Order: sequence, then C-alpha cells, then structure tokens
Amino acid sequence: MIIEKIDLLRKFLKEKRQSGLSIGLVPTMGYLHEGHLSLIRRAKKENGVVVVSVFVNPSQFAPNEDFDAYPRDIDRDYKLASEAGADIVFHPDTEEMYPPYSNTFVEVGGEMTKVLCGASRPTHFRGVTTVVNMLFNITNPDNAYFGQKDAQQAAIIEKMVRDLHLGIKITVCPIVREASGLAMSSRNKYLSEEEKTQALVLNRSLDMAKRAIVNGQRNSAEIVRMITDRINKESLASIDYVSVCSYPDLIAAEQIETRTLIALAVRFGKTRLIDNIIIE
Amino acid sequence: MIIEKIDLLRKFLKEKRQSGLSIGLVPTMGYLHEGHLSLIRRAKKENGVVVVSVFVNPSQFAPNEDFDAYPRDIDRDYKLASEAGADIVFHPDTEEMYPPYSNTFVEVGGEMTKVLCGASRPTHFRGVTTVVNMLFNITNPDNAYFGQKDAQQAAIIEKMVRDLHLGIKITVCPIVREASGLAMSSRNKYLSEEEKTQALVLNRSLDMAKRAIVNGQRNSAEIVRMITDRINKESLASIDYVSVCSYPDLIAAEQIETRTLIALAVRFGKTRLIDNIIIE
Repeated sequence: MIIEKIDLLRKFLKEKRQSGLSIGLVPTMGYLHEGHLSLIRRAKKENGVVVVSVFVNPSQFAPNEDFDAYPRDIDRDYKLASEAGADIVFHPDTEEMYPPYSNTFVEVGGEMTKVLCGASRPTHFRGVTTVVNMLFNITNPDNAYFGQKDAQQAAIIEKMVRDLHLGIKITVCPIVREASGLAMSSRNKYLSEEEKTQALVLNRSLDMAKRAIVNGQRNSAEIVRMITDRINKESLASIDYVSVCSYPDLIAAEQIETRTLIALAVRFGKTRLIDNIIIE
Repeated sequence: MIIEKIDLLRKFLKEKRQSGLSIGLVPTMGYLHEGHLSLIRRAKKENGVVVVSVFVNPSQFAPNEDFDAYPRDIDRDYKLASEAGADIVFHPDTEEMYPPYSNTFVEVGGEMTKVLCGASRPTHFRGVTTVVNMLFNITNPDNAYFGQKDAQQAAIIEKMVRDLHLGIKITVCPIVREASGLAMSSRNKYLSEEEKTQALVLNRSLDMAKRAIVNGQRNSAEIVRMITDRINKESLASIDYVSVCSYPDLIAAEQIETRTLIALAVRFGKTRLIDNIIIE
C-alpha cells in the first residue's frame, strides 16, 4: 500500500502498534537498488510492520545540487519495496512534509557535520537530520535502518537519536556493491559507460588502503596519499575529499589506532560519488 | 512517584500506553505555583496518565542569567503536583538530559524567536524547543500543556510541533494571577515587598491598554506609549520591552486588527518579570 498523507500513516500505524506489532522504518529517497532492498529485508526480519519512506528531501540539497534531476520512479519503487517486505510505502509530496510555513530545523552541532561531505555541503546534514526527525515523529518506529554507504549520515543520525532521547534503535547495514565492486547508488544512473568504468577506482583504492593497513601501515597521511595517487590516475576523476578518521566520532587522527573510517567523495563529470570502508 | 531516569519513565509509560491510557505531559521548571497546578488539573481531566516534568533546563539560560539562583524544591513540588493529579513527577538531573557529549539542537527559525523575549535572550528559545522536544521524545504524549504566561514560548512550541509533525495536541491555559493581579511566577520569590507592590503595574497597564482598545484605540504605537508611560512612573521598574503583535505569529502591526498579543518584560532590581494579554 502506498500512503501519501501523514495523518493516514499515523492512523494506520497507531492501530498496528496497539495490536502489539513493532515498527521498522527504512527512510529512502527512492529509486531503490539492492542496497535499499537489503535494509528492507533486514527490517522485515526484525519488525511486525515495515514502512519504507520514499521522499526526495529538498532541504538536504543545496541550490546548485541535483534535486530536480534526482531520479524518481515510484511505481518501480513500490513494486521493489513490496517484494522485499515493505508493508507501507510512505510517499508524501514536498508540501506535505514542508508546508509553506515550515521553518524548524534539527541540527547536530560540533565538527562531525562539518567534515567530509559537510565541508562541501554545509547545509546538507541539517536537512538530513530535520527530515529524518520528521519521519521518526510521524512513524514513531522501534527500529530504523540506514546504509553504511552514507557512513557520516548514519553516525550523525545515531548522535541525533542519542542526544534528543528519541529511543529508536538504529541499525547500519553493510554497503552493497555491483559485481564490479562499484557501490550501489541511485546516482550511478547519471554515469556514462566510461565514467562507470573509471569509478571502479573508488572501491579498488579503498581495498588497496585496507591491504596496506593489514600489512602494518598506520599513518593516516600515507593512506590518504596512496588513495589520492591511485584515483588521480583516472582521467575523469576529480577528488572532493579522501579522509581517514575515527568512527563514529569522525575525528581526524594522525595514526590509525581505533575503529577507523576511510571515506572519499569523487566527481566524475557532474556526478559526485561517495564510498567508504570501516576498519575495525 | 518520582522518576529520575529516562529509561524507567519510558518503560512505565509504554505499559500505560499499551493498556490504552492517553498520556498528558506538563513540562515545568519546578517551584510550582497555582499556574502550574491549573495545567496539571487540566491534564488530569483529559488524560489517563499525567506526567509533570520538573527540570531547570540549563540550555535556556544565558551565562549571565539566573540558572543557579532559580528556586528549587522537589519535595514541595512532588507534594503539590501529586495533589493536583500528577501520576509521575519526572525529575532528571542535568547529566541525564544533557550527557557530556550532547550537542543537538532543535530550532524554530524566522523572526518569531528573535522578537520580544528573543531580542534580549537570543539563545533562550533554542534551549526551550530543544528540551521540550527531548521531553516529547521521552514521554511521547498525546497532550501537552503550557501556560499563556509564556505566550511566545507557547506559540513557538506549537510551531515546532506543526513543523516537525510531532502529532501532539498542545493546550495553552490562561494566566493565573495573585489576588493582587500579579501574574504567578516562580521568579516572584526574588522580589522585595516594595518591588512586588510596584510590579502590580504590569497587570494594571495591560488592563488599561485593553480598556483603551475596547474603547476604540487601534494604534499599536499609542498602546505601547500608554503602557510605557504608566510603567515608567514606578521608580524601580526598568522596561525590557513593551510589544503589540499578532498572535500566534508574533508579527508587529501598526494597527490592531486580528488576534493580538500585548506583551511586556520589565526588570525590578535583578528580577525580570513578564506578563501579557491576548485581545481576541
């Protein structure tokens, strides 16, 4: 079932909750791929009711970004989500989520929203935490599911949940990759064949970094240099950042000692791709 | 029963909710007076379970304000709240609500948090919306009750609830006054006898303004001048603001045409008092 109105969804879920069912939420921007579907399947295993939200959230896009171009196909999303176990696809329009008067924001402070993707997208995470907070308020879920592909986003949402005492269990699921190694993303659709081939360097350079660490490399600057050199061999690649930091705190460290995130963002033409690896 | 821990309160309320009871929340900073008790009695009428929170919220005080001096008496509060119908007094300590890592804020944007009390207390309402959001997340109430004494706060909280789709019904209850006309406030405790006598000018000047409006005065500047002149006759009074604006939007207007808030803040010695009247 597709529900477009907040009040209807709230009413539906209230009944489910009263009959003792737990609620799992999978927030997405739609154009679902295997990464999303892995979250939905996980949610189905752990909850009585699974809600998948499909909403391209304007407040997390800057004016120069790809909000209008972002791929949308609700019929396909509904079919895929249902097959993976969704009971409800929540698909509000922009006015439903952000009426004209809407002007309240939820913001995680400190450095963690300013580093990595936050450096080149300064209003992005405020938009993410605001819309996810809204979705939490509307669905009041027991569990919510996010992909490690957006590792910084997952860490920031976990922090919001702790800080605001939301009482929701957040589960972060592994990155799902194409057979080629390319991390699944709705934005892969933008890539030309040549860009798609060259984009394999993201996963390969992260793998290379992991091998170096397994073999004893502990110097963050060396790791960054190694990945940067590798990516720069691709003619169409333009690096936004390559970063080594603690996870989930996202604090840069000279030496790799604790749980570490190696994250990168690289542009191929107009398409900005991200990828990462967490070293335990 | 007094509950100090978030997890215990959540568990207690989950059971009540599952047995079909509605939950009413009355957020307070304690040192309860008849104003608070009127909210609790109203909540008791309309809900199966009433939670009164008693928490002096540090994030709504600026460093130069009276956070440390703010009166506290939890034993008295517990007795008064219980007699008025509270089932639970939630009394967390600062660390429980704001662990050292806490760094997430909920903020209503636009002008309504910057005018009136927001002008001299620029971080105040961000602190209010953040802590009230936390209390909503912890208690997940059906209804929450606020006093019209803090008319700007009530309007801002109603906006937060709408904007973030919190799905909580907010009820704003009338100002409760001493026999003398002085609006009840925990801060009245700070006043000397002389200050308390002079502070009667607040209610009197608002009444005078109301009579003028009933008699046909529609010019906001005239109303402000009339109130200001009256208050300035009191030797110990120092005006922070006198304001005429629409309610609940808090937009200044030259002419009084719609539902209108006349609000003022005046210092007597170190004590800052507020009062207001809403003209329908």
